[in-house]
Amino acid sequence: MTLFGKRPETLVRQRSPFNVGPPPASMRAAFVTPNDLFFVRNHGDVPAVDPDSFRLRIGGAVERPLELSLAELARFPPRELAATIQCAGNRRQELVTLREIPHELPWGCEAISNARWSGVALADVLAAAGPTAAARHVALTGLDETERHGRRFRFGGSIPLEKALAPEVLLATAMNGQPLPPVHGHPLRLVVPGWIGARSVKWLAEIALQGEPSDNYFQRVAYRLFPSRIGPENVDWEAGAMLGELPVNSILTTPEEGARLPAGATLLEGIAIAGGGRAVERVEISTDGGESWRTALLEPAPERWTWRFFRLAVELEPGERELVVRAWDSAAQSQPRDLAQVWNFKGYMNNAWHRVRVRVG
Amino acid sequence: MTLFGKRPETLVRQRSPFNVGPPPASMRAAFVTPNDLFFVRNHGDVPAVDPDSFRLRIGGAVERPLELSLAELARFPPRELAATIQCAGNRRQELVTLREIPHELPWGCEAISNARWSGVALADVLAAAGPTAAARHVALTGLDETERHGRRFRFGGSIPLEKALAPEVLLATAMNGQPLPPVHGHPLRLVVPGWIGARSVKWLAEIALQGEPSDNYFQRVAYRLFPSRIGPENVDWEAGAMLGELPVNSILTTPEEGARLPAGATLLEGIAIAGGGRAVERVEISTDGGESWRTALLEPAPERWTWRFFRLAVELEPGERELVVRAWDSAAQSQPRDLAQVWNFKGYMNNAWHRVRVRVG
Repeated sequence: MTLFGKRPETLVRQRSPFNVGPPPASMRAAFVTPNDLFFVRNHGDVPAVDPDSFRLRIGGAVERPLELSLAELARFPPRELAATIQCAGNRRQELVTLREIPHELPWGCEAISNARWSGVALADVLAAAGPTAAARHVALTGLDETERHGRRFRFGGSIPLEKALAPEVLLATAMNGQPLPPVHGHPLRLVVPGWIGARSVKWLAEIALQGEPSDNYFQRVAYRLFPSRIGPENVDWEAGAMLGELPVNSILTTPEEGARLPAGATLLEGIAIAGGGRAVERVEISTDGGESWRTALLEPAPERWTWRFFRLAVELEPGERELVVRAWDSAAQSQPRDLAQVWNFKGYMNNAWHRVRVRVG
Repeated sequence: MTLFGKRPETLVRQRSPFNVGPPPASMRAAFVTPNDLFFVRNHGDVPAVDPDSFRLRIGGAVERPLELSLAELARFPPRELAATIQCAGNRRQELVTLREIPHELPWGCEAISNARWSGVALADVLAAAGPTAAARHVALTGLDETERHGRRFRFGGSIPLEKALAPEVLLATAMNGQPLPPVHGHPLRLVVPGWIGARSVKWLAEIALQGEPSDNYFQRVAYRLFPSRIGPENVDWEAGAMLGELPVNSILTTPEEGARLPAGATLLEGIAIAGGGRAVERVEISTDGGESWRTALLEPAPERWTWRFFRLAVELEPGERELVVRAWDSAAQSQPRDLAQVWNFKGYMNNAWHRVRVRVG
């Protein structure tokens, strides 16, 4: 937590549990987010874990249950990749302008960051344990405790075995060349590229292979997507769809909402992600609220699982201007125009066109 | 072609090359489309192929080039799956109402069908040939010839090696338990589930592994997605993105556009697909042009690569009514509202909300 103390400009959304992100203008500070600017999403306290006594347990539907120290884990082939992680609740603040979303963090657009992760492939460790034919899902449990409805329990969730066996899913011990900071899961976290951040379980201590998804609260109840006509007053928890892959999304990071700009040439900048294993193919920007569009310049994406930076130089006339951005993925899928289309009472997966209102001149 | 003669109600979009589809009300005739109702998209003549002398050649970046008769192909392990194929140009007719799209077939919503395919896995055949490290794409060439810009050549395209190695990609010799009909690629076609129909190359005779995508006209020039401000007058062919995976889409098949219905209870029916390897999670229907929405009943999808049927009983008041449908996939991705957002001068990948205007009472 002292980590963020060094950056007084960070946006603290909640002190306890500790939830914080960089201001939009810092999101593009570098292609790989510095560790002390990487957004933090916690559901409970930050556990202090002794790396020497730490063990990762792998059990359930496997031939050979395992209990691995960090030294034993490090004997698997080393893997490293850059991957962007985004919280399912990113951009919730925009949804709140439409209708109240109770009990959820009002994230702006900053709950997304990019890091270079190193560790070992989950697939290699699972292969050592030997999944049986009954294994369909991989349940993950961290060491962080939280409380819901009067019950204390550890954070958890699951991913399908098919994704768990994909080469990009890492058991990470380091982030941008440094050991994982405490708030990011020290000493071990999962990294599930292309999926909602909640599945990249931090302080990961238990892996159970099983036939069904995890029955942890954060898989079974939270992180579900409901139609917009359902609210807390009429919710049927089973009616929501469990979240997994992220949809295509784009965010204008510069200028920020409410900025005052001089008339004339302005550089618009931002980031886009495609979700799942897809690629960002195109980003379009409007300076007139969505009436006309231009294609932004996409900067190269050195790796598959990362965000892409984009930018576009525009001329702005004096007055109130609404800047808008929308992206296309490699399946020709673009973003919905209206917040009303994506509104849901948990405030997840907002990928409506991103709008930034500025005053020019 | 005599095949379709038996079904006088089919919608012949073009006699030569032969392009035809079922009327919307027949699209849901059965979960698996009967062979004589399955839409046909051809770019050239239908070649008459002698199965005895037919050979499939596999070459390029492989250790062991192969030349396989149908009998030799049949020695690979048999595979069978149901898969929906959709033309990239499906629903082009709606886009034409916005702005002209020259030289392209004005498909309604019928260029999508579902069949049970049997044959062998492309991955098994590629494994026998042994792709070298240089192989990144799998180029496919059929026996059907077409002419563009004064040049005659065979239809072709490519898919990335990663997709080619996926278990769902079949070298199919049969369709719904029958040998492939001539218009559907007899004796051999590729089936690439989740991707645009153009990559499911018919009369497939040549497979070449290579570092780059195919330079066939239908990969290099056609089947690219351009921004809506680009037209034939200012096109830069390299600026379009090559099409691959399909986006989430949904179609109301009953009632049809312009139908006259009695007031009162009406059953609305249709089909939805998710594209790529995603699943359809939700379908919403509006009977007031998109102001309010209800969730439709999704029928079970027995297999992963197929469309899903949906239905909803509604009460309709007398007057002009606009029925609208939109779907969500398993990445929380939904369809754009407006045709203007998806319009492109080749008329591909229209997944805007599907609207059907009817007169009630």
